[in-house]
Amino acid sequence: MRRMFGKKIKERVYLDWAAATPLLSEVKTAMEPFLSSEFGNASAIHKEGATARRAVESARESVARAFQIRPEFVTFTSGGTEANNIAIVGLIEELHLTGLKYEEMEVVTTRIEHPSVLKTMEQLERLGVQVNYIGVSEVGKIVLSELKKTLSEHTVLVSCAYANSEIGVVQSLRGIRKIIREAEEKFSTKIFFHVDAAQAPLWLNCQFDSTGADFLALDSSKCCGPKGVGVLLQSRRAKLLPVTFGGGQESGLRPGTENVAGIVGAGVAFSKATERQSHRAEKVQAVRDAGIKILLETIPKAVLNGPTGAERVANNINISIPGLDTEFATVVLDKHGFAVSTKSACSGAGGGESMVVKEISGDPARALSTLRITIGPLTTVEQIKSLAVILKSHIDKMSTYSN
Amino acid sequence: MRRMFGKKIKERVYLDWAAATPLLSEVKTAMEPFLSSEFGNASAIHKEGATARRAVESARESVARAFQIRPEFVTFTSGGTEANNIAIVGLIEELHLTGLKYEEMEVVTTRIEHPSVLKTMEQLERLGVQVNYIGVSEVGKIVLSELKKTLSEHTVLVSCAYANSEIGVVQSLRGIRKIIREAEEKFSTKIFFHVDAAQAPLWLNCQFDSTGADFLALDSSKCCGPKGVGVLLQSRRAKLLPVTFGGGQESGLRPGTENVAGIVGAGVAFSKATERQSHRAEKVQAVRDAGIKILLETIPKAVLNGPTGAERVANNINISIPGLDTEFATVVLDKHGFAVSTKSACSGAGGGESMVVKEISGDPARALSTLRITIGPLTTVEQIKSLAVILKSHIDKMSTYSN
Repeated sequence: MRRMFGKKIKERVYLDWAAATPLLSEVKTAMEPFLSSEFGNASAIHKEGATARRAVESARESVARAFQIRPEFVTFTSGGTEANNIAIVGLIEELHLTGLKYEEMEVVTTRIEHPSVLKTMEQLERLGVQVNYIGVSEVGKIVLSELKKTLSEHTVLVSCAYANSEIGVVQSLRGIRKIIREAEEKFSTKIFFHVDAAQAPLWLNCQFDSTGADFLALDSSKCCGPKGVGVLLQSRRAKLLPVTFGGGQESGLRPGTENVAGIVGAGVAFSKATERQSHRAEKVQAVRDAGIKILLETIPKAVLNGPTGAERVANNINISIPGLDTEFATVVLDKHGFAVSTKSACSGAGGGESMVVKEISGDPARALSTLRITIGPLTTVEQIKSLAVILKSHIDKMSTYSN
Repeated sequence: MRRMFGKKIKERVYLDWAAATPLLSEVKTAMEPFLSSEFGNASAIHKEGATARRAVESARESVARAFQIRPEFVTFTSGGTEANNIAIVGLIEELHLTGLKYEEMEVVTTRIEHPSVLKTMEQLERLGVQVNYIGVSEVGKIVLSELKKTLSEHTVLVSCAYANSEIGVVQSLRGIRKIIREAEEKFSTKIFFHVDAAQAPLWLNCQFDSTGADFLALDSSKCCGPKGVGVLLQSRRAKLLPVTFGGGQESGLRPGTENVAGIVGAGVAFSKATERQSHRAEKVQAVRDAGIKILLETIPKAVLNGPTGAERVANNINISIPGLDTEFATVVLDKHGFAVSTKSACSGAGGGESMVVKEISGDPARALSTLRITIGPLTTVEQIKSLAVILKSHIDKMSTYSN
């Protein structure tokens, strides 16, 4: 609490890092020239164009260094959603072009994926592709034995999030990759692996080879970079067709005049995100664990959604308080200075249950009463303690009304 | 020419406004807060989210006012290319969903469209849609009699640019719309009209109703706004399916976390573009006409591509100098401080002929030697005079070598 002109000014406590992150000052500084004097089109051959081109390619090299991949396998997109779309639809269309019928292709995913994956899967289904949704455990982990059974000679793609945007479960990419490799050997086929890593770079090791992915989709705005910029990383063996059509930008995979300022900002953001990532994650995870403890102790009715420990992304807390209108609770918390959410922003700001929590728990009351608290590197245990007190008092008030 | 520390500093003369435009300072100022303290996700319900949402909706209202359309018919995209894709593919997919077979649909366009239209047309052809390319005159005007003959009971879409990005020809949207209306009456069908207006707002009246379009695609970066933001305007009767899949942003038509800063910038840019547009166009057109006269007089071999007068967009000069390597000429001009291009940046920075000039002239030598000079509101006749002198001297030098 600060004071200004004798009035108490409530400082905001922003705990919705899964939805949006503050822009780093270094990112803004890097973008500045491209929002003023350096306005050239990166495809033009004059000095202004060459400056823009160098900036885009330098950003591509930064991203490549950050994720330890060659620059030619880095594609800039308009965001994580588009990166997921290009990977999933682009692969299927490429395979279709090489002669595979849609009906002959199978894709494996789960029902707890982000809308940009799930809605894209529905599009594949409309094309005739068979999408197999495999089960996840009660904390959201992919059941590896089920994955193994589901992979067939027709499987061309497995898709999952690295860290789930709602409940923070971290999938065992190595475990999944191992099963994929075994199936590839067994069937003598290629099974591509798409990983939606939008929530990952600040908290998890995203070194490309170590993920085992053929496609890694990233979003600058979830890593303290600008909104409207994403990145798709791809393996050497992966070929894609574009999903929108136009000029030859981004090796023909993502047409349209390059968003130079945004791309430059994303380059810095991803660099910074991967720097000292494990140190950052360790520090924040301790705050997360203390926060979870406080919340569950303060609010006995509360249950944690998703796993604990290293299987949970470092900055995610997600609880359900069955019976509570958590949509309203977020509004009350907001008035007290705390920005939290109920679920993924892309799943709609309005009410309604969390499809993710419904899937892992099968419990509608739990799915309807989620509260997602995604913390940042500067979040303190004291802040979560204050939040817990306000939330407790709100719950008590609500129960008085309903009694 | 300025002097600094006694050295001559060449001032740049930027004459590639069709490829990229400088960001207006008002645009940058409006964007600033959303690149620093106001970083919320517009789909979140807390204060940070609400601030972002208000900014996006206020930008939508600005765009709506600028083009005199209702805000609910304004969709923000990641650029003009995506706007064209959504309009063209989105319409065909929507009609397909309502029961029309791809093979039953016909689309009419020309071979001088921008790659974001032409490549999208190729995608329609892959789906099975019949695309009819109608002829244009020797200055690039759509031959209305041919349009009339080509429209059939199967035609669902007519697509053209308002102002061609290479040769600046302005199509008679009213004339086209009239022929479309007559065909609609004759066949009792709906024929939608898509207009790629990326090059238009600074120079032509884009009041939505007056264009007669069902879809008007715009690009912020061609109107002194940020790159990576486009707008699609649509008529009340027009329904579209999305071309990428994800969250419910932009009424479900364009998923993905909103690029708040970019959208805010675009709102200001389009407002400013349409303000005093006819005054701006009149002033610049006079410079253009003086410039064309000077170029054709200084370089007798030069021929103008595209029309003259009001049929040519106010800021476009496009000449061919048969026999000259104009790619090299742009490099020489660049060294002398002049930024010009040979053709559309989206058609590739490398060499190769202009498909547009090839189409209107049928002359490979002319198509291989284009020079596009697209001027801005502050371009002077003196600047074009200097350019003409340098170009002339370069041509003379080249002819000395070849003799």
